[in-house]
Amino acid sequence: MLAPWRSPLAHALHRNRSLADVRFLQLATVRKDGRPANRTVVFRGFLDGTNQLKFVTDARSEKVGQILHCSWGEACWYFAKTREQFRFTGELILVNETDTNLSLQKARQIAWQELSDTARTQFAWAHPGKARVCDDAFHALPPDPVSPLPHFCLLLLEPEQVDHLELRGNPQNRWLYQRNQQNWTVQEVNP
Amino acid sequence: MLAPWRSPLAHALHRNRSLADVRFLQLATVRKDGRPANRTVVFRGFLDGTNQLKFVTDARSEKVGQILHCSWGEACWYFAKTREQFRFTGELILVNETDTNLSLQKARQIAWQELSDTARTQFAWAHPGKARVCDDAFHALPPDPVSPLPHFCLLLLEPEQVDHLELRGNPQNRWLYQRNQQNWTVQEVNP
Repeated sequence: MLAPWRSPLAHALHRNRSLADVRFLQLATVRKDGRPANRTVVFRGFLDGTNQLKFVTDARSEKVGQILHCSWGEACWYFAKTREQFRFTGELILVNETDTNLSLQKARQIAWQELSDTARTQFAWAHPGKARVCDDAFHALPPDPVSPLPHFCLLLLEPEQVDHLELRGNPQNRWLYQRNQQNWTVQEVNP
Repeated sequence: MLAPWRSPLAHALHRNRSLADVRFLQLATVRKDGRPANRTVVFRGFLDGTNQLKFVTDARSEKVGQILHCSWGEACWYFAKTREQFRFTGELILVNETDTNLSLQKARQIAWQELSDTARTQFAWAHPGKARVCDDAFHALPPDPVSPLPHFCLLLLEPEQVDHLELRGNPQNRWLYQRNQQNWTVQEVNP
């Protein structure tokens, strides 16, 4: 069942569709030392039949270690044209090469197949974050478009709370959606 | 002394200056329960004579309690036009009404004075995040433009690490700046 925040989010995506970075949002996680981390990720749609946001990531990236340590994340999505923000708080589910859930493994393959050649090629690059020593490591041919490279991961965010803020209007408007099992409640709160 | 990342950041700000939201970035903190939080904040320039990024916040907002509990933050700043990202990892310094440091208290006053009437009025609004019960609470007149309201806070981020990623180019480019006392080192790393 579609969560009630799906409709305002779909509107925001539609109204901001002219922005090249409309699908870019910032995902916060917690490092092993308890400090926060934050980076831009790309929204890849929803997992079929769920309210889980899809992202992709490299098993060699720092965020994967962070998520294995603390599976909680908060994504902040600002839409510049309509001046509104969605904050998604929830559990992060990492689907890596060894995941035995067949339907999630299938979703991982589809996510790989839906990437562009350029995006897939990045997974053939040298270890992210390590000292850059040799540019040969970046001249890889596009990998097989069907079977994901081993360190390709699907990353899902299952929202438990969604905070929607509209900066337009005086005063601004803000709604808080909260999940209890499969039921969502919504409350209007002060901006 | 200007940190070496100040120059690429100044270039990014300049090249993206046509974007209405060029000064919007996402600040991650950690909640008391150890989970991450993330929201859009507005860059208000640097504290004079330092490399500390300035923001303003309301003492009643959730992030203030989070910062008092864990003073570490990571800000993620994506520039859409030039397709580059800066991640600032460092300590957050909250300057509230009771701060006894005279120079920081002065900086807090200046930050207040530099806000627009519209921005200052938001600090006279009802308690953020609480149930919205009465819109009268939002029809306040602009507060005194000289003396900050009691719950107005200046928030500083003192970067210890800055991660600069350029998505343009194939492969992409990425540099890691790290501070050791007052000295910065820079290393080119794999994107």
